[in-house]
Amino acid sequence: MGVLLIDQDGVLADFEQGLFDAFCARFPTGPAIRPADRRGFYAREQYEPEWRPAVNAIVRSKGFYRNLPEIAGGRAALEEMRAADHDVFVCTAPLSDAPRCAPEKLDWIERHLGRDWVDRTIIVKDKSLVGNWLKPCVLVDDRPGVSARGVASPPWAHVLFDAPYNQGEPGPRLSCWADWRAVLDPVLAAQRR
Amino acid sequence: MGVLLIDQDGVLADFEQGLFDAFCARFPTGPAIRPADRRGFYAREQYEPEWRPAVNAIVRSKGFYRNLPEIAGGRAALEEMRAADHDVFVCTAPLSDAPRCAPEKLDWIERHLGRDWVDRTIIVKDKSLVGNWLKPCVLVDDRPGVSARGVASPPWAHVLFDAPYNQGEPGPRLSCWADWRAVLDPVLAAQRR
Repeated sequence: MGVLLIDQDGVLADFEQGLFDAFCARFPTGPAIRPADRRGFYAREQYEPEWRPAVNAIVRSKGFYRNLPEIAGGRAALEEMRAADHDVFVCTAPLSDAPRCAPEKLDWIERHLGRDWVDRTIIVKDKSLVGNWLKPCVLVDDRPGVSARGVASPPWAHVLFDAPYNQGEPGPRLSCWADWRAVLDPVLAAQRR
Repeated sequence: MGVLLIDQDGVLADFEQGLFDAFCARFPTGPAIRPADRRGFYAREQYEPEWRPAVNAIVRSKGFYRNLPEIAGGRAALEEMRAADHDVFVCTAPLSDAPRCAPEKLDWIERHLGRDWVDRTIIVKDKSLVGNWLKPCVLVDDRPGVSARGVASPPWAHVLFDAPYNQGEPGPRLSCWADWRAVLDPVLAAQRR
């Protein structure tokens, strides 16, 4: 059995849908970018420069992280993983200079996954420091290149969680939560230490 | 150079002094236990059973974690460690069922250490999952037996931060922050990978 680290935004919580909805609500005639049309990891950078302060303000506004919708199937997959005797943790990097982000992420975990998952949530900017070198270990994350960030060589294999903004990236990819066993099991097997 | 993980409560933030002060303020004639008289890791368990709910309420009250005093020398030691090219992170396990704990710990970090330390703070219940197997790695923590908790064999060597309630425990011990080099350097040297 392995250690499974599961990213939060873009994997369990639907950051892109939340941003789109909030942008449309604030700027009904503004140039909202639909989630399906998002390209590049940072939404802010896809917006024209004059709209970037608006995006920055939305993702720092009260309730933004707390009220993100769920990505379908994530909650069920987490429970299935635990039932399969994996050690499962949510592993999330909060936005910098956004004091509401970490607390609201924990609120989201409690509301959507339940209180015991709060104790299984790791808040860490540098995910290369988290994991286990002695057991198979995987990080499911929507961010391309996450394994090359940070001070350490990470112990986990990165499985990219599919999104419109990370197409064309190499490596194993999880396209929907229903497929987690088919995608993660071979990666874990290849990691047997 | 190594990876240094520094616990927060009882190491950087003075949990015991904060609890004593809060207990005295709420119960001026109550049986407050002075920090120097504390025995056993959990303060709650040293109080008589009828006072334990009061202790639980104090450590969950608004502002408790935010307002803890500093332990002398911690802040300076952190900056010295960074200046010595160590990778330094605060590594803290929040209280369970205490939604204010994690956010207030981050507030404390920002107020006492500065905003850039917020991004260097890791909030994790199971510290065995944090660290680096490829570099020398140390956890400074006041909790006896912390290395035997958790799902993994931790990559760090535990250096116990001295406290009245952890006397008699084996292993390397840091008695005050001014001595950090003398105590940590040999532990890091013994860990060269």
